[in-house]
Amino acid sequence: MAQQARAIQTRQSILLAAAAVFDERGYGSTTINEILARAGVTRGALYFHFASKEELALGVMEAQMDLGPLPPQLTKLQELVDQGLLLAHQLRHDPLVRASVGLAMEPWGEGLDRSAPFRSWIERLRTLLEAARTQGELLPHVSPEETAELLAGAFTGIQEMSQVLCERKDLQRRVAVMLHHVLPSISLPALLPTLDIAEDRAERLLALREAQEHG
Amino acid sequence: MAQQARAIQTRQSILLAAAAVFDERGYGSTTINEILARAGVTRGALYFHFASKEELALGVMEAQMDLGPLPPQLTKLQELVDQGLLLAHQLRHDPLVRASVGLAMEPWGEGLDRSAPFRSWIERLRTLLEAARTQGELLPHVSPEETAELLAGAFTGIQEMSQVLCERKDLQRRVAVMLHHVLPSISLPALLPTLDIAEDRAERLLALREAQEHG
Repeated sequence: MAQQARAIQTRQSILLAAAAVFDERGYGSTTINEILARAGVTRGALYFHFASKEELALGVMEAQMDLGPLPPQLTKLQELVDQGLLLAHQLRHDPLVRASVGLAMEPWGEGLDRSAPFRSWIERLRTLLEAARTQGELLPHVSPEETAELLAGAFTGIQEMSQVLCERKDLQRRVAVMLHHVLPSISLPALLPTLDIAEDRAERLLALREAQEHG
Repeated sequence: MAQQARAIQTRQSILLAAAAVFDERGYGSTTINEILARAGVTRGALYFHFASKEELALGVMEAQMDLGPLPPQLTKLQELVDQGLLLAHQLRHDPLVRASVGLAMEPWGEGLDRSAPFRSWIERLRTLLEAARTQGELLPHVSPEETAELLAGAFTGIQEMSQVLCERKDLQRRVAVMLHHVLPSISLPALLPTLDIAEDRAERLLALREAQEHG
């Protein structure tokens, strides 16, 4: 059991090292040797967990999808807002998240499916919007599928532009601006004043989560 | 004068060849030899116009900014819609536009300013939105700067996602969906029914322009 825990820890530290190197150098320029040096593990340990650079990249992209549990909110639209603002926060502070988004943007490796992270985010947003519909939060004309695709695509570009213009320093503000522009077109008007779309929402959610874990 | 016309034509055919190769292979993998082979010009001719691969890439990016003249519309918001839908159309059909967007997305060359195309698009959109404000088309709380940045960023990601998911086949629909979600948050409600945001708007505008040129 201790051995299994150690294996999980080794795998995690390899992923973190891979993420850091992918994030700094891009997929194409990264070598397994650089990841080895950063992770401080043996070549044997690395290949036990990941057979190739491609598998490392896929591992990084899978790890990203887990933003951790978020507290349920009164409305599904608030949970949608929370996902977006938390992802913006993690993109600034979590190298795994940052690397996996970078990998999704870069055409790497023949035959690898770059569409997987997009489809996965669209599916997550669509599920939230369907639930919002069931709870009667959406305007009648809204298509959860179309809105989910719009939000996933728009977020992708906003984070890219924010990275290019200012190393993502203003990303949470930009995502809040996007939500302020899109929500009035999908939400029942009466719900709008209840939604908390403040730039510092993610920080408050994370502080709450930490307090609950340690309280 | 005939000589000058020939020089312009040579420059244009080099740019088109460079755009096609950048589009297919990305900046990093493109070689000047491939561009030479595609353009069918001499090495001397190419270096007369462009001293390096970087200069070729900058030339492609500059050429893209010109979508050609569009007919003035009754509202500036319709002109904003037209710019977005025409760019979506050109991204599908014009290799110069496609390559220049690809170059803006790819980190190429040390010290090159990837932010230039973003700043240029933001500026163009901001100018249109300021004009819309002057004509009384915008809701009072709208910030032309913020909305321009949102539209530039969202468009960037939507075209990237559309490329990854389906080679941009649905790009015009996706841009129309974006406009349908954003315009109600910035436009005077009474103007909304006057806006033509149909997916085939760009084709109709281009047909009109062609008819005027040849009529």
